[in-house]
Amino acid sequence: MELQKPHLTPPFTKGHISVARMTNYWYIACQSQELTDKPLVRTVIGIPLVLFRGGDGKAAALLDRCPHRNIALSLGQVVNGNLECPYHGWQFDNSGTCQVVPGLCSVPDQSGTRAVAYPVVEQDGFVWVFGNADIEPETLPYQFPNINDSSYTTWREEFAYECTLHAALENITDVSHTPFVHTGLLRGDPKRKQITVAIRNQSNGIEIEYLDEPRPSGLAAQIIAPNVTEVNHFDRFLLPSMAQVEYRFGNNYNLLVTQAMTPVSDFQIRNFLVVTFRLGLPGWVMQPLVKFLLSSIIRQDGVVLKAQAENIRRFGGEQFMSTDVDLVSSQIWFMLQQAERGELRQPKEISEKRVQILI
Amino acid sequence: MELQKPHLTPPFTKGHISVARMTNYWYIACQSQELTDKPLVRTVIGIPLVLFRGGDGKAAALLDRCPHRNIALSLGQVVNGNLECPYHGWQFDNSGTCQVVPGLCSVPDQSGTRAVAYPVVEQDGFVWVFGNADIEPETLPYQFPNINDSSYTTWREEFAYECTLHAALENITDVSHTPFVHTGLLRGDPKRKQITVAIRNQSNGIEIEYLDEPRPSGLAAQIIAPNVTEVNHFDRFLLPSMAQVEYRFGNNYNLLVTQAMTPVSDFQIRNFLVVTFRLGLPGWVMQPLVKFLLSSIIRQDGVVLKAQAENIRRFGGEQFMSTDVDLVSSQIWFMLQQAERGELRQPKEISEKRVQILI
Amino acid sequence: MELQKPHLTPPFTKGHISVARMTNYWYIACQSQELTDKPLVRTVIGIPLVLFRGGDGKAAALLDRCPHRNIALSLGQVVNGNLECPYHGWQFDNSGTCQVVPGLCSVPDQSGTRAVAYPVVEQDGFVWVFGNADIEPETLPYQFPNINDSSYTTWREEFAYECTLHAALENITDVSHTPFVHTGLLRGDPKRKQITVAIRNQSNGIEIEYLDEPRPSGLAAQIIAPNVTEVNHFDRFLLPSMAQVEYRFGNNYNLLVTQAMTPVSDFQIRNFLVVTFRLGLPGWVMQPLVKFLLSSIIRQDGVVLKAQAENIRRFGGEQFMSTDVDLVSSQIWFMLQQAERGELRQPKEISEKRVQILI
Repeated sequence: MELQKPHLTPPFTKGHISVARMTNYWYIACQSQELTDKPLVRTVIGIPLVLFRGGDGKAAALLDRCPHRNIALSLGQVVNGNLECPYHGWQFDNSGTCQVVPGLCSVPDQSGTRAVAYPVVEQDGFVWVFGNADIEPETLPYQFPNINDSSYTTWREEFAYECTLHAALENITDVSHTPFVHTGLLRGDPKRKQITVAIRNQSNGIEIEYLDEPRPSGLAAQIIAPNVTEVNHFDRFLLPSMAQVEYRFGNNYNLLVTQAMTPVSDFQIRNFLVVTFRLGLPGWVMQPLVKFLLSSIIRQDGVVLKAQAENIRRFGGEQFMSTDVDLVSSQIWFMLQQAERGELRQPKEISEKRVQILI
Repeated sequence: MELQKPHLTPPFTKGHISVARMTNYWYIACQSQELTDKPLVRTVIGIPLVLFRGGDGKAAALLDRCPHRNIALSLGQVVNGNLECPYHGWQFDNSGTCQVVPGLCSVPDQSGTRAVAYPVVEQDGFVWVFGNADIEPETLPYQFPNINDSSYTTWREEFAYECTLHAALENITDVSHTPFVHTGLLRGDPKRKQITVAIRNQSNGIEIEYLDEPRPSGLAAQIIAPNVTEVNHFDRFLLPSMAQVEYRFGNNYNLLVTQAMTPVSDFQIRNFLVVTFRLGLPGWVMQPLVKFLLSSIIRQDGVVLKAQAENIRRFGGEQFMSTDVDLVSSQIWFMLQQAERGELRQPKEISEKRVQILI
Repeated sequence: MELQKPHLTPPFTKGHISVARMTNYWYIACQSQELTDKPLVRTVIGIPLVLFRGGDGKAAALLDRCPHRNIALSLGQVVNGNLECPYHGWQFDNSGTCQVVPGLCSVPDQSGTRAVAYPVVEQDGFVWVFGNADIEPETLPYQFPNINDSSYTTWREEFAYECTLHAALENITDVSHTPFVHTGLLRGDPKRKQITVAIRNQSNGIEIEYLDEPRPSGLAAQIIAPNVTEVNHFDRFLLPSMAQVEYRFGNNYNLLVTQAMTPVSDFQIRNFLVVTFRLGLPGWVMQPLVKFLLSSIIRQDGVVLKAQAENIRRFGGEQFMSTDVDLVSSQIWFMLQQAERGELRQPKEISEKRVQILI
């Protein structure tokens, strides 16, 4: 039942929400260890998938729907390396080809009985799925830096955000919310310093470098880099759905936090966190501290992002306004839109602009 | 709030779901024993009804909404054979005529104050309601065979399916799912035999006869027909919403399973099961066994049908493909659509076609 | 997923529901005592508001959405008399002006950073909010009679109705439901008397006077006015959302029940009840009795109104029919519609018509 819409003055919203659906990219569907001999359900940019390992142990991703009577294939089982439908026993191999139609006297028609299959690459402990079915992707999944360097410690974890991809990306690459959302943990000192920020548009994303930034106030920096004065801080957006925060302390120490986000639906994100670090103390000493601090920060961001998403939906859409402090929010949104339309395949020139903020 | 729709490749669905609404037919609303002196709420093909027994004990069905201020009449009570509205005390008789408007000095206007009334027939322990209000139906409800034959035992039960009517009808008239959904109970022997199936289109439905079918493997047949070799097996679809499975064992023994289904809404069915049988042992011996076996089978079908419906809705519509093994699915759907448009009133010629399947 | 709509005969509804949204009026948002130094969430005619007390203790109402990133301001806190956003720390004063944008080197742009502010008046213990933002209202909130007269006792309470404003207004100004919904408590004597009712259309509402009405049967009248024979009974609708019931017993005694209703959404009403009375016994004796009786009556109305709203929504809209007993329902709806369109600003002539009913 639809009632006449309210005609309030002023209108509350433009009715728009920053949702982009970029199909021409790789997304992490799950961690390798999650995919065993049982079918696994995962939704990637709104596409319901069933993941399984075929007879050769190779990961496969099919649309989670039998082409015959449309029941979820994920309710079935793997039989001789094929995925068997639970309703009428049709069997599909890694490539989606139907191998068995029980009861049929003739050979099944190959094209009509196919299940939709998505390209899969297993790399660095993650199962990546491409957002377009039945094609050969021209690109490879993202390669996480440092994780094969033995002088680095790597910590991985899975989180969830309940918000749009754009909202999460702008949050992670934004320092101005940190004193309010992470008070005491990351910044929050009322005495601020004016610094210069360099913003670099790149072919596959945006890099922010904070020039002359002091070591952030708050517990996190005190624990992770207790005796440090020289800090280099970068925030990065990487297409289609990654945000990266890097701190370099002098020449030797480094903390690289990558959130590789897989949009499940318009307001649900599965967030695969990969943290690599080389800090003053041994990895086994630092890891619990890094884990505690970053988990806390991500959990706080999750709360504020969920609240933001709920209020936007309550109003039926966004009505944002930005200032100079919102460094890259509009550019990220612009690139997401371009990527959604498939207009981002050619690398562009790197351009740089500089902005002043109080940090 | 509506977001822009995804534009994924390939499209997931044709956006269609096999839902038909046939108003020109009789449906079972409830069992006779369920209808006492209290108003009873039942929804039949999406129509919210209140059933009650008038002063003469005659069953009546009104639209469950007072014509005055639209509150549910089922919240009221029967007063002197009339159904009284709980809000302002208006009273309606079996035919929907308003007999009392309290507070009104004049006589109530007969046409304006009427409640919408549906034709009702009580027959064989069921209260049948016609899907069109305020008309004289040209047909009578279905007459269940054998239930008045004392050599037969009858067992009745009420079940629910959470799927479309079409999905339930094609499931009941389909043998190819039985080895997978009812493994061990009904078929499942990996050694299959090629048989011929005769499919007969009739004026009011479709009959399938399985020629040369051996006694089905599995527990059910072993218990119901332990020493039988000769089997005659029929599956039938009867307009608008019945499916029937009949097994004849030799000349004397017979098992007739009728599922008379009343669509409540597009994805909810109230399933009135009527089983009549004459088997080797006395009825009181066989009934618990028949009940156990059929209840198990229907429950298993209910699970798979619900899963199918959920996945179809998750994808926003159906995208079916069929093979020769799907004997009558398309024809059932075609007849449901015809019946919905009211094009099935004249009996047509009986036609027969033959198909080979592995059973 | 949208299925084809049912095409039943006859159609169940006109698809209309009596919902009006009148923005050019004052509504009670909360009681004064509810508004402390914490932000308070209230929704008034569908507008999500955050109420708070600024530095001077003055009540303020802003749209509950930060103009920057649209999170709910009600999740923030009051800092130096400004409301601070929980996400990036923007601060807004009573008038919605943004006073602080942390991190920004320049002065924030005044027009772009404003929060939407609604006119607020605090009067007689209530915080009233005007339904149009950023304007100077030409009217003042309603002044409850008698509450400053020391010979009267006043009782206030907050209730909720789950129905449309129109349904609640017609219920309160309707006597014909009372024998059925409030049986034994208010009317219900099967012996009815024919009386004359005067209906007066006024500039800002409608007044009903029941001429020659006997003291109502039922417990309520026996307790409140035990020895009374002379009764004057008025029901009133006052724009935009008030209904009033007044009983005068002789020259001295009076019971005035005002339900000042604030529509929260189309089917939710916050009902601020104000009862002033001067009866035979002292106020402290009568108050518990008045409270018990009126609470019971309002609770019974709440149940029936909720059931009515649920059934109307189940049918997708209203299909009402009225008789002479429905004294002012259509006129109230007509005035609500006029008020929604802003056509009711000039006072009209008072007109009176007379109707006979059985009470």
